[in-house]
Amino acid sequence: MGIIGGGPAGLMLSHLLARRGIDSVVVDDRTYTEIEQTVRAGILEADSVRMLVDTGVSDRVLREGDQHAGIELGFDGQLARIDFAGLVGSSVWLYPQTDVFVDLAAARSRDGGDVRFGVSDTIVDDLDAELPVLRFADADGARHEIRCRLLVGADGSRSMCRHRIPEDRRQQSFREYPFAWFGILCEASKSAPELVYSHSERGFALISQRTEAMQRMYFQCDPDTDVDAWSDDRIWAELQARVNVNGLELIEGPITSRTVLRFRSFVCEPMRYGRLLLAGDAAHTVPPTGAKGLNLALADVRVLAESISQFLASGLDRHLDDYSRRALQRVWKAQHFSYWMTSMLHLPVERSSFDLRRQQAELRSVVESRAASAYLAECYTGWPR
Amino acid sequence: MGIIGGGPAGLMLSHLLARRGIDSVVVDDRTYTEIEQTVRAGILEADSVRMLVDTGVSDRVLREGDQHAGIELGFDGQLARIDFAGLVGSSVWLYPQTDVFVDLAAARSRDGGDVRFGVSDTIVDDLDAELPVLRFADADGARHEIRCRLLVGADGSRSMCRHRIPEDRRQQSFREYPFAWFGILCEASKSAPELVYSHSERGFALISQRTEAMQRMYFQCDPDTDVDAWSDDRIWAELQARVNVNGLELIEGPITSRTVLRFRSFVCEPMRYGRLLLAGDAAHTVPPTGAKGLNLALADVRVLAESISQFLASGLDRHLDDYSRRALQRVWKAQHFSYWMTSMLHLPVERSSFDLRRQQAELRSVVESRAASAYLAECYTGWPR
Repeated sequence: MGIIGGGPAGLMLSHLLARRGIDSVVVDDRTYTEIEQTVRAGILEADSVRMLVDTGVSDRVLREGDQHAGIELGFDGQLARIDFAGLVGSSVWLYPQTDVFVDLAAARSRDGGDVRFGVSDTIVDDLDAELPVLRFADADGARHEIRCRLLVGADGSRSMCRHRIPEDRRQQSFREYPFAWFGILCEASKSAPELVYSHSERGFALISQRTEAMQRMYFQCDPDTDVDAWSDDRIWAELQARVNVNGLELIEGPITSRTVLRFRSFVCEPMRYGRLLLAGDAAHTVPPTGAKGLNLALADVRVLAESISQFLASGLDRHLDDYSRRALQRVWKAQHFSYWMTSMLHLPVERSSFDLRRQQAELRSVVESRAASAYLAECYTGWPR
Repeated sequence: MGIIGGGPAGLMLSHLLARRGIDSVVVDDRTYTEIEQTVRAGILEADSVRMLVDTGVSDRVLREGDQHAGIELGFDGQLARIDFAGLVGSSVWLYPQTDVFVDLAAARSRDGGDVRFGVSDTIVDDLDAELPVLRFADADGARHEIRCRLLVGADGSRSMCRHRIPEDRRQQSFREYPFAWFGILCEASKSAPELVYSHSERGFALISQRTEAMQRMYFQCDPDTDVDAWSDDRIWAELQARVNVNGLELIEGPITSRTVLRFRSFVCEPMRYGRLLLAGDAAHTVPPTGAKGLNLALADVRVLAESISQFLASGLDRHLDDYSRRALQRVWKAQHFSYWMTSMLHLPVERSSFDLRRQQAELRSVVESRAASAYLAECYTGWPR
């Protein structure tokens, strides 16, 4: 089995296959350090946590992650809590993607997995042949050509693998959003115990956490925003303005990182072509508002490991199609949820009083209705397999 | 009390005030026959039905109306029922607005109410004086000037009363939609026992009922559609195409009426200026997708009758402000719900595969989740007072 991409999706798949006695090689153009230092998502669904623990990757998430039994929605001068535990008996965990990566890489190393970071010239070919090929050059320059039973493209949103599928064999659905997030890391203690999603007349802000001493916050901005034009003072003034109106006061501290995150919705269907299967960001991207990206990638490879195993046992192509069909059911629900959270909380660029008041009414409808709150909680904590 | 507008809002208010011993005169530029012959909404919330029955207007709705304990949502090749009764223990009634009007006019006439249809030159003035004035000419040409304690503008979406409020004293929020409904009445028996909201790649269609022998159906169209360019055959082909894909076959029959209904969302805030109060369409318009227009008008005047009574007893302006504040809470929830139903079911004009697939995923999320179905049912059957 050839797996292209050594992020959480690729490593978790390799791990799950190994548990089923299936060998794989994982390659990634990036070095271990590059991946480890990329700041990404931080929220794991309950099922994602169970997957890490129950399949023997690591139980560090339970020791070092923070269980969040709800979120706060700020709007129209108030903060209202969506109580996941009380509404649907579930939770999420705050545990950065980089830690998931470190745990998975350590588990693969511990179990003797073949994972190669820092490779180059990676290419996949003969995708509809019986034995497709994976070519790459090792970090030391040695060239390899490996014939595999299957190839898996888990190589992120700019996926080389996806681009190897003929254009007339993939349907690509996408939506671009006219705004982005200005994200910061800062040295400060927590301003709130759980994530705060704050709607305001100045635009959306998200207050999240990383550690006791390091916090992650975001605010809606123009996609072309120049981060260098924003001083610490200006950033804090903007963040405070967007949460103070709803009754939250932020604890400030030195800002150690500032980036603009553009976002879009994207799905490539089917998630299979010949002997190539796509997983995670290679097949789909969601806006970050619903915290679904990493969780979808892990859900993909859970189904994929099962389908690969069935395919290898039976030789039947339909198990590969089943993977795409089953994975896409969840992918599209997550696409909708991410779109919903985004459009409920972000002001349109050409904001009208109708948009603003309707969003406030929607947020009020959601928090006043136990049914609506439970629906949001179900989506946020993750659907059953 | 001067009430401008003899539709359901104005007549129901006059009726409710009479029950509290408060006299009113109702005037309308239209004749009784004009109003009676206007085809409008047909779905009443349970609370609207109770209001007609419990306040002694008429119990005809219970005898001749059709109780609907759910709706069908058609999408992605299937029909799924939202079971209002099972989910939230409530129902709606199919009972045309014109019958509500007939019942209310009969009740006002029976109880000796002063209702004048077919007046002309109606104008309201001195709105911020102690006793504002209502001027009009009777159907026989006789001119009247009546000083009233309060005036109520229940004169529909093109409200003369609303336009008498200085522009800087009203905030108007609105949204236009780039599509309309092509509505028909046809002589045929029912194609389905309850309303069917059908999403399709060709656009939205709504199958509703009027009587055993007369049906009302709609399909999403361009706002500039010329009804004369559509033959019966072409209309039936379009309707069938939009519901057949989801498994419904329509019973066809001669089409007796065809109209294009443009729609928009609109709210005027506050719903009070000086001694003038606005109610129903005069203050707000919703797209018809959520069946909320008539129900909102009745909910407005229930609150308004209470506030007027408190104002007359105490002389305190704050009861008039309370009316606006309380009514707007419901108005904005209904605005959101109507917008939600509209945007979930109608294809955008520039339709992308993302829009289509996301809408299908949203509809699937709603019908697969008991919580989401209950949220929709709550909104559709009406919020508690």
